[in-house]
Amino acid sequence: MAEQNKVILHGMWASPYAKRVELALNFKGIPYEYVEEDLKNKSESLLKYNPVHKKVPVLVHNGKAIVESMVILEYIDETWKDGPTLLPSDPYKRAQTRFWANFIQDQLMESSSLIVKTVGEAQQKAIDHVYEKLKVLEDGMKIYMGEGSVDVENNFGILDVVFCALFGAYKAHEEVFGMKFIEPEKFPVLFSWLMAIVEIEAVKNAALPHEKVVGILQHFRQSALKSSSTA
Amino acid sequence: MAEQNKVILHGMWASPYAKRVELALNFKGIPYEYVEEDLKNKSESLLKYNPVHKKVPVLVHNGKAIVESMVILEYIDETWKDGPTLLPSDPYKRAQTRFWANFIQDQLMESSSLIVKTVGEAQQKAIDHVYEKLKVLEDGMKIYMGEGSVDVENNFGILDVVFCALFGAYKAHEEVFGMKFIEPEKFPVLFSWLMAIVEIEAVKNAALPHEKVVGILQHFRQSALKSSSTA
Repeated sequence: MAEQNKVILHGMWASPYAKRVELALNFKGIPYEYVEEDLKNKSESLLKYNPVHKKVPVLVHNGKAIVESMVILEYIDETWKDGPTLLPSDPYKRAQTRFWANFIQDQLMESSSLIVKTVGEAQQKAIDHVYEKLKVLEDGMKIYMGEGSVDVENNFGILDVVFCALFGAYKAHEEVFGMKFIEPEKFPVLFSWLMAIVEIEAVKNAALPHEKVVGILQHFRQSALKSSSTA
Repeated sequence: MAEQNKVILHGMWASPYAKRVELALNFKGIPYEYVEEDLKNKSESLLKYNPVHKKVPVLVHNGKAIVESMVILEYIDETWKDGPTLLPSDPYKRAQTRFWANFIQDQLMESSSLIVKTVGEAQQKAIDHVYEKLKVLEDGMKIYMGEGSVDVENNFGILDVVFCALFGAYKAHEEVFGMKFIEPEKFPVLFSWLMAIVEIEAVKNAALPHEKVVGILQHFRQSALKSSSTA
């Protein structure tokens, strides 16, 4: 890696936001150095590079910091022009891609994490919310993708990255929650899409070890159950 | 206007989100038809074009709908390539621009509207929050703009649009609240910036009538006071 193209990613292994950037860098074949952050004891570099939000991910490219996963994804696509692109070339299709990526960001990220961190009625409410939004996404993707199967591998991009970073560890979700979120009967378009994404080489290489995801999910479940029983 | 380039904007005059799109279209010199929406009785077109969020703004370009103001701004810049651009060409500068536009969107839009809609302690909390975030923006803009005065007219873009759509009616804010939000002593960089923006021809042409803004702000204040006295 030439010194004039030094890329460092500050992430945290379980962060779906950092995972987005990792997936994009992998897919574009961009070599980078990875710095794992301890979010309870953030590095001086992280605080220096992201003084406003103090969060991962941060991409440092030749000493310049770019923060916020969606901003980083656009930056990557605009900076490394060789090879596959992360956004379609047509402005209307780009707008649709950004719209649906924002939809997942705004409507599904928070409520999915609530499923992990709540119990009882609050958890059921979060599950219902996620299913309701997944139905909207399912209908939207039917139109977005058009008829026939999509060649995900050759059209992999920002939307796939955002979807996969959230739902890619579906086997761990199933083991911990006893249910699939992207159920094939309920969401056939989303299910086929996810199954195609997880077969892509760049995604496989970034997949988290199953046991590690199960472990952190169980840890959150135990904390949620404990605080619910002592509340 | 050629039929193959028909542009319609569905907006609502007091919406800062719709105002962003209006400012961008004006600045790029793109002719368009404007449809004022009654948000209490939304048009069938609005519901058809934005079935997911059912909100303004919607840009309809040759029959294709683009929704969400930030997505629309990027679409406009990518579609009408002639004339001034709304984003800088350098990817790092583009990333900074998107970062700060998102900052205003996420940290200032909601809390600014809370100032309008609350009274007493809740209002003071909203004011403190806005001042705190404006300080972060002030410091950020010092770095973003660099030394010396910025030639806003020749660098007008997405960030100016988002800032101006929120704070452009500062004279009405002053009349209704008895205070400036962008105080020159507290926020000298933001104040100079705002003063330069409101002198731009495309911004002047999109400025709302002072009395109309004062009227709607007073209406919201009265509703807030009324619901606080009956609570």
